Amino acid sequence: MQLGMIGLGRMGANMVRRLMKDGHECVVYNRSPAPVKAMEGEGAIGASDLDDFIAKLETPRVVWLMVPAAVVDQNIEALVDKLDEGDIIIDGGNSYYKDDIARAKRLQPKGIHYMDVGTSGGVWGLERGYCLMIGGEDASVAHLDSVFKSLAPGVGDVARSRGLAGESSQAEQGYLHCGSVGAGHFVKMVHNGIEYGLMAAYAEGLNILKHANVGKVSQEVDAETSPLRNPEDFQYDLNLADITEVWRRGSVVA
Amino acid sequence: MQLGMIGLGRMGANMVRRLMKDGHECVVYNRSPAPVKAMEGEGAIGASDLDDFIAKLETPRVVWLMVPAAVVDQNIEALVDKLDEGDIIIDGGNSYYKDDIARAKRLQPKGIHYMDVGTSGGVWGLERGYCLMIGGEDASVAHLDSVFKSLAPGVGDVARSRGLAGESSQAEQGYLHCGSVGAGHFVKMVHNGIEYGLMAAYAEGLNILKHANVGKVSQEVDAETSPLRNPEDFQYDLNLADITEVWRRGSVVA
Amino acid sequence: MQLGMIGLGRMGANMVRRLMKDGHECVVYNRSPAPVKAMEGEGAIGASDLDDFIAKLETPRVVWLMVPAAVVDQNIEALVDKLDEGDIIIDGGNSYYKDDIARAKRLQPKGIHYMDVGTSGGVWGLERGYCLMIGGEDASVAHLDSVFKSLAPGVGDVARSRGLAGESSQAEQGYLHCGSVGAGHFVKMVHNGIEYGLMAAYAEGLNILKHANVGKVSQEVDAETSPLRNPEDFQYDLNLADITEVWRRGSVVA
Amino acid sequence: MQLGMIGLGRMGANMVRRLMKDGHECVVYNRSPAPVKAMEGEGAIGASDLDDFIAKLETPRVVWLMVPAAVVDQNIEALVDKLDEGDIIIDGGNSYYKDDIARAKRLQPKGIHYMDVGTSGGVWGLERGYCLMIGGEDASVAHLDSVFKSLAPGVGDVARSRGLAGESSQAEQGYLHCGSVGAGHFVKMVHNGIEYGLMAAYAEGLNILKHANVGKVSQEVDAETSPLRNPEDFQYDLNLADITEVWRRGSVVA
Repeated sequence: MQLGMIGLGRMGANMVRRLMKDGHECVVYNRSPAPVKAMEGEGAIGASDLDDFIAKLETPRVVWLMVPAAVVDQNIEALVDKLDEGDIIIDGGNSYYKDDIARAKRLQPKGIHYMDVGTSGGVWGLERGYCLMIGGEDASVAHLDSVFKSLAPGVGDVARSRGLAGESSQAEQGYLHCGSVGAGHFVKMVHNGIEYGLMAAYAEGLNILKHANVGKVSQEVDAETSPLRNPEDFQYDLNLADITEVWRRGSVVA
Repeated sequence: MQLGMIGLGRMGANMVRRLMKDGHECVVYNRSPAPVKAMEGEGAIGASDLDDFIAKLETPRVVWLMVPAAVVDQNIEALVDKLDEGDIIIDGGNSYYKDDIARAKRLQPKGIHYMDVGTSGGVWGLERGYCLMIGGEDASVAHLDSVFKSLAPGVGDVARSRGLAGESSQAEQGYLHCGSVGAGHFVKMVHNGIEYGLMAAYAEGLNILKHANVGKVSQEVDAETSPLRNPEDFQYDLNLADITEVWRRGSVVA
Repeated sequence: MQLGMIGLGRMGANMVRRLMKDGHECVVYNRSPAPVKAMEGEGAIGASDLDDFIAKLETPRVVWLMVPAAVVDQNIEALVDKLDEGDIIIDGGNSYYKDDIARAKRLQPKGIHYMDVGTSGGVWGLERGYCLMIGGEDASVAHLDSVFKSLAPGVGDVARSRGLAGESSQAEQGYLHCGSVGAGHFVKMVHNGIEYGLMAAYAEGLNILKHANVGKVSQEVDAETSPLRNPEDFQYDLNLADITEVWRRGSVVA
Repeated sequence: MQLGMIGLGRMGANMVRRLMKDGHECVVYNRSPAPVKAMEGEGAIGASDLDDFIAKLETPRVVWLMVPAAVVDQNIEALVDKLDEGDIIIDGGNSYYKDDIARAKRLQPKGIHYMDVGTSGGVWGLERGYCLMIGGEDASVAHLDSVFKSLAPGVGDVARSRGLAGESSQAEQGYLHCGSVGAGHFVKMVHNGIEYGLMAAYAEGLNILKHANVGKVSQEVDAETSPLRNPEDFQYDLNLADITEVWRRGSVVA
């Protein structure tokens, strides 16, 4: 199907590429013109300004925003009078979910449908696909099903979870309609919180491994510092690259 | 090669199975006789008591202990007078690494080599292999290389880390000689610490998702409890099974 | 001066007592009539309903709310049409400071002045005085200076902070105009956060002291529990009441 | 009574001063001679070296060590052959309590009594007294009772805890025999842990207060930083000195 993308940064550009690979038609716009030219070279339909962008989209229009959270509202502001009843705006960035709720409420009187899609995948997304956490009305989500399917990783070679049977669910294909508007970014927000917790756990652990040779360092005596007890127990020069490599095979922190 | 295993719990028994599948000969002993009988039925050489166990092992003997950390020392105590110079004791459980250092020191005058092997893999280890973090002398580690290779997962279909080239390293095959005695359990200890940090991060996040509908619950007014602000923003009934499923595809918390 | 108090719970009633002790006239109202009767018996002017309460206050009226945070807004709602330009509403409870900002904005067109006063002191406040953290306009704060002075503990026998000289400041007398509306509850909110951190620190420490005899307890051996190392080092039966008593003299955690 | 002090740093010198003020006789020694001279000028009996120190002490000798934890063992090593059965060594510094247990065990065959005294009070100790947490044998603690009483703050003007009656206990006078050897430093260790927790709580809270004006700072828009929501709610320039001053009167974080 056809989709308009505003914002051709690392995420937006790769999502357009992945969509075109699956046969979707992409109209693209970006604040600065260079990325638009670049994507035209790869098969996208470039837009020179917002009016051009709107004109090139068939109704009901699908406008996907992939811009910093701080400028989503001004982008919507610029779009709203150019859009028609039935059009869909998707915020694929990292907006706070309460902003989603407020936007949907503002856009509803105009008949514009607002959706939020938390998008995880980073630099590997183009190749492997994006994990999509979706909030919005049932009809809008259904309308965009083929787009979500193309962006998502698909079932892949991940071992099936115990208890699942029959045809693979949306979730198993890598996208999920989590709930009403805001639910996608709510789930993504928690996802990111978990991510930072994971990084903290690895960082703390690796830091201990890195200093497992602290007993080799001689220590000054003063009244404020407790002497290291049993320095003979801290004599390991550990190779962190090897350790994290071995953990990739069979360990529970892989 | 030949190896003696003491302790046929979930971990020990599956490790014996994985070793036999690769052609290693396993002499097995357990405090209670039933698991010994069971493993005999699968091709292991059962031992009726410690003397029998020792007698059935060729020198230099390789004795792998897979018992609770609290009883490792009494097992070593029972073994030490029956072993000969050049024999090897491996503690594959979760001993504190300082105990490893102390044991190696106690066993050294008798010429017995002590090694510690932190073993990760749990219930999936039989099928997928165990991630092995090894501490001990170079010669002992080299002597047991084929055993470690059989227990470890092997290279598998894990994408190769950037920057690695040539033949796969030990670490890429799932086992690693981390350093001198104690280094294996030191690395495993930190591995477990990271594991618990990861679990805490998931638990905190999932708990928030589970209560994303807290705004639907009415709240009593009292002087001690702050009222929930904006209950309209906490109306999501999220499906945690679906969310964790979708995170398995392409998300960074997979 | 004269002041009206709504809410005669533990905090409100004691504040009225402390104000009357200093010669202030207090008009009091409470949802249920019994506390009103009780305070009348101690010299307060009781009000039978809100209209009576308003009628008994001289203009510009000073209305101090000491009610649960969850019902402050409905109390203000009930008051607002009965009040006149120049009247002052004070929320002495634990409102979220953003609610203060919103209320002041709502009341401003009517010329009603809103102030927030974070009040610390609990059950000892009557005797020792209340620590007051005040947010609001300069003129309102100045108007109520004698009230704040009566409620606050005063300079007392607290050793003067180094660097302070001359007449004692407001802060040294136990009340402080922290800033514009909301600032009082903002500071009180952080004060409470610190309080909970302090309690957590004491709780963690005392819990360790309480279990300093854990080495006396025998421990089951299983595969999941790490044995207690060096139980001989955890043989202390400590008397927590004595320890917290001794800490009250000269220690830095007094 | 007579007491020998080794280590005339900030803590040791002030403790000697406080003891002499109460009529105790102090023999003093320090690695470098200048502090010894200084204390002689204040009435102490200086010792030129360890032998001189030992010779000037009456038996049973009382030797109080007030030196960095890292050098306590070498001080004891240097003393042990010069001391006689019945002499007492006190470590008043911050040794790890397990070291106390080990030292007492090493000294016991020689009949030397070892005690540990956790000492809190810092720079105000001279004037206000030291909070003493004591570990050791009953007889040694009893022998030194008058010393502890002089060092401790005494009952002072601290309000008596509810439920206490009759003569003031040791704890109310500021010193406490916590238990057998090591118990004093164990309690002091936990005391210090609580202290650091308290400091962290204050630091976190004050940091929030300091940045309560963050909404006044303009923020760059980028893809990685979440924009500050509601900057109008973070406009307070708070005076931290005043706030911490007002908290000293009547607040629960005083």
